Amino acid sequence: MFELGGHLVYNVFVYDTLFWQKSGIGGNYFFMECYLDNGATTAVSPSAVAAAKRAMEEVWGNPSSLHRRGIDAFLLLQQCRETVAGVLGCDREEVTFTSGATESNNLALFGAARAKKRRGNRIVTTAFEHSSVIAAAGKLETEGFEVIFVPPEPDGTLPAEKIAQAVDENTILVSTMLVNNELGTVLDIPKIGRLIRRKNKEVLFHCDGVQAFCKIPFKVSRLGVDLMSVSAHKIHGPKGVGALYVKKGVRIQPLLYGGAQEKKLRPGTEGVPMIAAFAAAAQESAQKMLPSQEKVAELNRVLRERLAALDGVVLNSPADASPYILNLSVLGIRSEIMLHALEEQGIYVSSGSACAKGEPSHVLSAMGME
Amino acid sequence: MFELGGHLVYNVFVYDTLFWQKSGIGGNYFFMECYLDNGATTAVSPSAVAAAKRAMEEVWGNPSSLHRRGIDAFLLLQQCRETVAGVLGCDREEVTFTSGATESNNLALFGAARAKKRRGNRIVTTAFEHSSVIAAAGKLETEGFEVIFVPPEPDGTLPAEKIAQAVDENTILVSTMLVNNELGTVLDIPKIGRLIRRKNKEVLFHCDGVQAFCKIPFKVSRLGVDLMSVSAHKIHGPKGVGALYVKKGVRIQPLLYGGAQEKKLRPGTEGVPMIAAFAAAAQESAQKMLPSQEKVAELNRVLRERLAALDGVVLNSPADASPYILNLSVLGIRSEIMLHALEEQGIYVSSGSACAKGEPSHVLSAMGME
Repeated sequence: MFELGGHLVYNVFVYDTLFWQKSGIGGNYFFMECYLDNGATTAVSPSAVAAAKRAMEEVWGNPSSLHRRGIDAFLLLQQCRETVAGVLGCDREEVTFTSGATESNNLALFGAARAKKRRGNRIVTTAFEHSSVIAAAGKLETEGFEVIFVPPEPDGTLPAEKIAQAVDENTILVSTMLVNNELGTVLDIPKIGRLIRRKNKEVLFHCDGVQAFCKIPFKVSRLGVDLMSVSAHKIHGPKGVGALYVKKGVRIQPLLYGGAQEKKLRPGTEGVPMIAAFAAAAQESAQKMLPSQEKVAELNRVLRERLAALDGVVLNSPADASPYILNLSVLGIRSEIMLHALEEQGIYVSSGSACAKGEPSHVLSAMGME
Repeated sequence: MFELGGHLVYNVFVYDTLFWQKSGIGGNYFFMECYLDNGATTAVSPSAVAAAKRAMEEVWGNPSSLHRRGIDAFLLLQQCRETVAGVLGCDREEVTFTSGATESNNLALFGAARAKKRRGNRIVTTAFEHSSVIAAAGKLETEGFEVIFVPPEPDGTLPAEKIAQAVDENTILVSTMLVNNELGTVLDIPKIGRLIRRKNKEVLFHCDGVQAFCKIPFKVSRLGVDLMSVSAHKIHGPKGVGALYVKKGVRIQPLLYGGAQEKKLRPGTEGVPMIAAFAAAAQESAQKMLPSQEKVAELNRVLRERLAALDGVVLNSPADASPYILNLSVLGIRSEIMLHALEEQGIYVSSGSACAKGEPSHVLSAMGME
C-alpha cells in the first residue's frame, strides 16, 4: 500500500472515538470518514452543542449582574464548575476556567514563577512538553529564570528519577505532562511528585493533563500536583475553553487583570456558553472513559500488530504508551504526502502537533531522532 | 413610585434593543421582561447562535491541521476575520481574536508597555476606564512604569486637551476608551490622537472600543489609534470572545506563548465556534446600527425627560452621551434595593459595572461624587 525508503518521519495519532461520518453528495454518493486525529481536536458531542446552545438562548445573563438574569448565569456557571471539579476529582473552588490549555499552561508557568521568584530561580520541565509550556518556559528564561528541559530517553520514555535529578534547593517550579501529546508516553506523576518534594518541599508542581483528562482515570487531588491544565476540545467539547486546577492554598499570580471573576485569578466576563459545553463534554467523556479505553486499547493493539508487519514502518511510541496515541515513521515518505494520500481514502491523521503546523517535531528531536 | 431622600447613587444603563420576552408559566401566565442592562451583556442573537452551532457541528476541525477538516476550519476562521475587519474598518491581518475585551485590553496594555519600555516610562490613561484597563495599568505601575490616570470633569466629560496635557517625551502609551461604560461619555478619539502625537510621535495609542463598536459608526483605521479592543457579548454575540485591532506595522509583546496561531500574538487553538458567532453578531449589529441608534436616541430622550420631572433623580450622564447608556442617582435609595424593586416589575437594570459586582463605582468617584 505505501512506498517505503529513506528516513522521514510520519506520525499517526490514534484516539478515542473513531469518528465515522456519512455525507450525502448529490443524494446518491456517500463518503466514509475515518478521523484519527483526535489528539489535535475532536468532533463536538451533541450534548456539548446542546449545552452551549441552551446557555446562549436561555441563560445569557452576565454572571456578575445582580438581577435574576445574572444570578441564573452565575448558578449555571457554578454547576459547570461542580461538574468539571467532579470529573477532575477536586473541589469546585479549585477549578479556574480559562480560554483553553495554552492559557492554562501559561497561567500556571508565569503565575507560579512570578509568585515564587523571591524563593528561587530554577524551573524544571521536560524537552517534550507541549509548545505552550516550552515557549512559556523559554520566555521565563529571558526574564532571568534558569530553565532545565529534561530530555526523554531515546525510546520515548522519561523516568521520574531523571526529572527529580534536575531539582535542587533553588527550584521553584516543576512542570511535566501526564501523557505526551505526540508519543503517548505516560509519566509517573505521583512518583515525580514524591521524588521532587523529597529534594525540595517548597517546589510547586504543575502537570499538563490535556491528553490524559477523561482518557486515563485519575483524581487530581491524589496525584500530588499543585496545578493541572485541561482542555475541552480534546474530549469532544468545543475549542476556546479549558481549566486550570489550582490546589487549595496555592497562590499564583494572574496573567490578566480586571474584574473579580474567577477569584481575580482570571478576570473577564466568563465564557458561559463554552464553559457549559465543556462541562457537558467532561461529564459524558468521563462516563464513557472505561469502555472507550478498552475499545481503543484493542484497536491500538491491532494497528501496532499490522504496522509492525510492514517494512519501513517504525513505531516511535513506547510500548506502554497511552493507547489513544500512536506515533510512527514511514521511512522515505514525507509526512505531508502521506497525510494527503490517506486523506484521499477518507483517513485523517496528523503529521505532527497541529500547533506546530508542519514544523519538525521538537518531541522526536528531543528523543534524538533525525 | 419611588421613595426619595438621602444621597446614595443609583445607575440605569439604557442600551440598544429593549429586550422583551414572554415565558409561559403553567401555560397561562405570561411575564413581560424589559431588559435595560445591555451594557453588562446582551441576549445572543439567533444568527450568532446558528453560527456557533454550525461551527461545532460541521466545521469542528483544528484550523492548524493540514487535512481537509483543518483547512475547512481555517477557511471559516479567515472568513470570520474578514467579517469582523469589515465591520471595524480595517484589514483582515489587523484583527487578532481573543477570549474577550479583558484579554484584549490586557494584551494591549502589557503588550505595548513591555514592547516599548526601553523608549520611555510613562503611560497615560483615564480614571474612568474599564477595570481591565485600570487594573492592568496598576500592575504596570508595580513593574516600575509611571501611570497617569486623568480624571474626568465633574460633569462626566473628558476633553482631549486634558489627556494630551499628561503626555510628555517619556510617554510610551496612551489608553482611552471611546464610550465610557457607566456614563456613556463619548471621547473625541481622533482629536486625542492628533494632540498626543503633536507632543510625542512615538507614543502608541490604544482605545477600548467595547461600548462603541456597532453602536457608533466609525472606521478604526481613521480614528488614529494603533490598538482597539472590542467584545462580542455587548453586541448580541456570546460571552468569551473578543478581538484586538493591531494596526499594520505596530509591534507589541504577546501575553501568551505557545503555537503560531494569530501570528504568534495570541497562541492557542482558536475558539472557532465563538469566533463564528462573534462575526455573525458583528455583521448583524452593524447592519442594524443606524436604525437602532435612532430608536434608542428617541427612547433615551423620553426617559431623560420623564426622569427629569421626578424629584430626587439626578442624571449623571453628560447631555451629549451615547444614547445607549444613561446613568442616574435616586437620592436616598440604595441601588441594590432599587435594582430588586425594578426587577419585580420585570425591569432589569444595573447598579454599577457588572465587573465590580456591587462595589462603589470608580467612575462616579473619579467625577468627584460621594
